[in-house]
Amino acid sequence: MSKTFAINAGSSSLKFQLYNMPEESVIAKGLVERIGINNSVFTIEYGDDQEFTVTEDIATHAQAVDMLFDKLEEFQIITDLTEITGVGHRVVAGGEIFKESTLVTPEVIKQVEDLGEFAPLHNPAEAEVMHVFEERLPHATAVAVFDTSFHTSMPEVNYLYSLPYEYYEDFQIRKYGAHGTSHDFVSKRAAELMGKPIEDLKIITCHLGNGASITAVDGGKSVDTSMGFTPLAGVTMGTRTGDIDASIIPFLMDKLNITDVNDVITIFNKKSGLLGLSGVSSDMRDVEDAAAEGNERAQLTLDIFMNRVQKYIAQYIAVMNGVDAVVFTAGIGENSGITRKLIMDGITFFGGEIDDERNDTRKEALISTDDSKFAIYNIPTNEEVAIARDVERFK
Amino acid sequence: MSKTFAINAGSSSLKFQLYNMPEESVIAKGLVERIGINNSVFTIEYGDDQEFTVTEDIATHAQAVDMLFDKLEEFQIITDLTEITGVGHRVVAGGEIFKESTLVTPEVIKQVEDLGEFAPLHNPAEAEVMHVFEERLPHATAVAVFDTSFHTSMPEVNYLYSLPYEYYEDFQIRKYGAHGTSHDFVSKRAAELMGKPIEDLKIITCHLGNGASITAVDGGKSVDTSMGFTPLAGVTMGTRTGDIDASIIPFLMDKLNITDVNDVITIFNKKSGLLGLSGVSSDMRDVEDAAAEGNERAQLTLDIFMNRVQKYIAQYIAVMNGVDAVVFTAGIGENSGITRKLIMDGITFFGGEIDDERNDTRKEALISTDDSKFAIYNIPTNEEVAIARDVERFK
Repeated sequence: MSKTFAINAGSSSLKFQLYNMPEESVIAKGLVERIGINNSVFTIEYGDDQEFTVTEDIATHAQAVDMLFDKLEEFQIITDLTEITGVGHRVVAGGEIFKESTLVTPEVIKQVEDLGEFAPLHNPAEAEVMHVFEERLPHATAVAVFDTSFHTSMPEVNYLYSLPYEYYEDFQIRKYGAHGTSHDFVSKRAAELMGKPIEDLKIITCHLGNGASITAVDGGKSVDTSMGFTPLAGVTMGTRTGDIDASIIPFLMDKLNITDVNDVITIFNKKSGLLGLSGVSSDMRDVEDAAAEGNERAQLTLDIFMNRVQKYIAQYIAVMNGVDAVVFTAGIGENSGITRKLIMDGITFFGGEIDDERNDTRKEALISTDDSKFAIYNIPTNEEVAIARDVERFK
Repeated sequence: MSKTFAINAGSSSLKFQLYNMPEESVIAKGLVERIGINNSVFTIEYGDDQEFTVTEDIATHAQAVDMLFDKLEEFQIITDLTEITGVGHRVVAGGEIFKESTLVTPEVIKQVEDLGEFAPLHNPAEAEVMHVFEERLPHATAVAVFDTSFHTSMPEVNYLYSLPYEYYEDFQIRKYGAHGTSHDFVSKRAAELMGKPIEDLKIITCHLGNGASITAVDGGKSVDTSMGFTPLAGVTMGTRTGDIDASIIPFLMDKLNITDVNDVITIFNKKSGLLGLSGVSSDMRDVEDAAAEGNERAQLTLDIFMNRVQKYIAQYIAVMNGVDAVVFTAGIGENSGITRKLIMDGITFFGGEIDDERNDTRKEALISTDDSKFAIYNIPTNEEVAIARDVERFK
């Protein structure tokens, strides 16, 4: 039996999931937060609902990894590090270089680090964590899985901005998208459920979580996606604006006496979206509760969220000039039947129809009526298992 | 017989059109350019194809207006200024204040000036020109016609950005749109041509000129439009980017060593769009010619333009959950049958179908087939005559 890690490192965090492969059963999973800040929190779940949490300063990602290994042995989750034969690293920005998952080598680590200009909060940490794992688990098959790879199939008509062309040539300014692993995973699963070759299908995947993106998957390939050069663009998200008139930036800098443009981008990324609009929370469930209690701004926030998702579904029907399936996934997509219903009920002109009974689920299910002109699915995503699967391919 | 001016003032320009009303026949029209710069150019056309142009320094808009009056008398276009009984002033930014055209008063001039923060290049000049006309033609009915008024009917779900809500309350940051006079004019005309009450119709108006915007007109009211807080947003334009990931701004400032964010906004407004992408021209005709000669970037530029327009048409079908007519207008929209065809042929899923023979026109015409599920029209816009008509309503 071989054990494989799916690792997701952020600037101050490290998420991990340890699988028995190829069974795909979870042996342990957890999270280290506030790395390099103070009062770091290490949490691990394992066995039969056992959970361990400790708060102590963890200065570096290397220290976090070492603590993880210690705990795996201490809790007898593994007896020896050599049992771990695979490590999959999620990487946020793969630029135009990484069109698919790739074995980790010193050169790949360097490239991931260099792509840090496209994801300054993520790529450097990811490169560091890859390096630490290479040192500690030199025997394991290590694979970098890029959030952007799935979208490298986009045609230039969709990935280019209407900027001076040399900005693309010189600085690689273009649409990169994100959540690629998820869009890939759920679109493939939808094709399986439909019993048709994915090559013949036009699928719109709505990954609606705290971060949210929508992708047009034509013949199994991403042809357009709502996130852009960065994850700021696209639909309204938990704390991100989604699409916005860029001219607002200088106007707002003037009004708020802000001198560093990055401070406005931070507001757009961290204080906007559901949180900024509602004033209640970045969590859709809280906003829904507030709306149910009569909070009008919360209701407006929900309406805006639906509206933006509807607009992207419509755009991607246009991009593919058709649609065979719409798939909902991720935190909101998988769990909020009412959101799925309100989104689809607002755009019945396109021919899709939610079946209320089928839609009353948080599990994988066809949720459209038999009369619906295209299929609508709820498909829970599993980026971690997709990463672990990718590692297996390289063993 | 009464004569009415339609006036369109910019920061360094003054466009004018003088009508006999209510006949709507043009007596004279022209343009003063480079006001306050140097080598200003005054051009006037009148009578039977007579044209007069002179290059000389014109320091102020007041001076331009005086020159215009002198020439009207010198060329015997009018015998006395009192013949001019109406003046309609196009105003770019009406904010949330001006929901419809309004008689010019000192207070209105002040308000237009104050709204300059939303259109710094236009509103101050427009306020000044109103003031000059009030002085020179105190007897005439003067009306301010706002480019934004038609869009003030938008619901907040469409005009609000997903920003902290207080930015709307405190600074009125929202979608305002533009080209309102044109969208209003051609949507009303489409309803006439369809022989149906506009209240019953869902119309998508595509004003595609050097500036371009697309509007969802539901029941005669604008419910959504592609331009945003400023005219930067929406589809690819002659020199404007249209929608773009705002995060590109700090990235580009860093790459180009730009310290003033406004310089990037200027690039987005003046050096992007068709011009920036193609490297050929901001004029669609030049880009089409280059593409026809095998210039691949020019062809890509055209493809991107179509793509963005298609995406907005799709969005507005979603917003209205249906469509009865799509209308093309303005420089590109009216004159480029191939553009109209390529746009609509790419989104046949929605049920619209161009009739190639009917589409071979630059005139007002139904251009869809009899089988098309919704009507497609070519309707030349006439913002000037719409402004003159508005003035008549106040006489």
